[in-house]
Amino acid sequence: MKLTEETLSNDMVYDGRIIKVYNDEVKLPNGHISHREVVRHRGAVCVLPVTQDGYVYLVKQFRYPFADVLLEAPAGKLEEKENPYDCAMRELREETGLTASELVELGKMYVSPGYCDEVIHLFAAKDLSFGEQQPDEDEFLDVVRLPLSEVYSDVLNGKIPDAKTQLIILKTVAMADRVQI
Amino acid sequence: MKLTEETLSNDMVYDGRIIKVYNDEVKLPNGHISHREVVRHRGAVCVLPVTQDGYVYLVKQFRYPFADVLLEAPAGKLEEKENPYDCAMRELREETGLTASELVELGKMYVSPGYCDEVIHLFAAKDLSFGEQQPDEDEFLDVVRLPLSEVYSDVLNGKIPDAKTQLIILKTVAMADRVQI
Repeated sequence: MKLTEETLSNDMVYDGRIIKVYNDEVKLPNGHISHREVVRHRGAVCVLPVTQDGYVYLVKQFRYPFADVLLEAPAGKLEEKENPYDCAMRELREETGLTASELVELGKMYVSPGYCDEVIHLFAAKDLSFGEQQPDEDEFLDVVRLPLSEVYSDVLNGKIPDAKTQLIILKTVAMADRVQI
Repeated sequence: MKLTEETLSNDMVYDGRIIKVYNDEVKLPNGHISHREVVRHRGAVCVLPVTQDGYVYLVKQFRYPFADVLLEAPAGKLEEKENPYDCAMRELREETGLTASELVELGKMYVSPGYCDEVIHLFAAKDLSFGEQQPDEDEFLDVVRLPLSEVYSDVLNGKIPDAKTQLIILKTVAMADRVQI
């Protein structure tokens, strides 16, 4: 089956600080005309710091869309022209004070490809050393240290709702030979 | 550390068909005033149909934000007042023609909680019977049948970028005893 859609016009309906929103006119595979709402985002990284004795560092942070404090792996948005590896090193340092001598790539994820183009690049961080937290001025978070085995169980038992955190924990465990933990 | 933010005003900047976008004014934990951009979405389901001989059904679909055809688990948006279980049964039938006699809950995921409130509810579908595909009028997709072991490797090797599809496959394998496959 022909699946491709053709863009007829781009219509930006919101030009924000972290997202731009479009309501584009498209031609569907059957020739009919329709609209597609698209949230465009610069992309982000998520990084799981893992110690040699099987602990991970996560952050607790108020997430406004849910009006709730969530437990998540350290993460953040790409700066303009920043590559994902450098961004992961930076966000890890800013959010937790940790520096890693090595990041292992764990792939990328499209958060909700039906209407959003955000890509999150995933990394495990190894050989950690400790410094000072330097969060952004609108960022408030607590760092927690937990056994990887415990957070793995928490993912399977539904206690960690954040998608990137679930995925980075499951991938780190499933790829333990590649991560060398 | 106090982490909670307080809403000072809600400002809807886009009222769309599948998303509403807000740029709310908030008081940060340190008392400063800032803004939070929020994409609000009704929520969705994702369902992985698994056969007793270790195959899964996925769909190939053009995803406009990426201008690309992606391989994903069947999924779709909640209707008004629809519960996730009924929605998963409906979307499975519409997208693949399959009916399941049982759905196993695999938890939920927050797709990108920094700025988006979309929740996707995950299910494995078992004891499948076969009927006719009935996609929505603006939906064009191809159904493919693949070994679960193959798609599991593809997730770890970065060949399946969609977040919900990666997560539902890793959870189905990690919880194989609970899913009873």
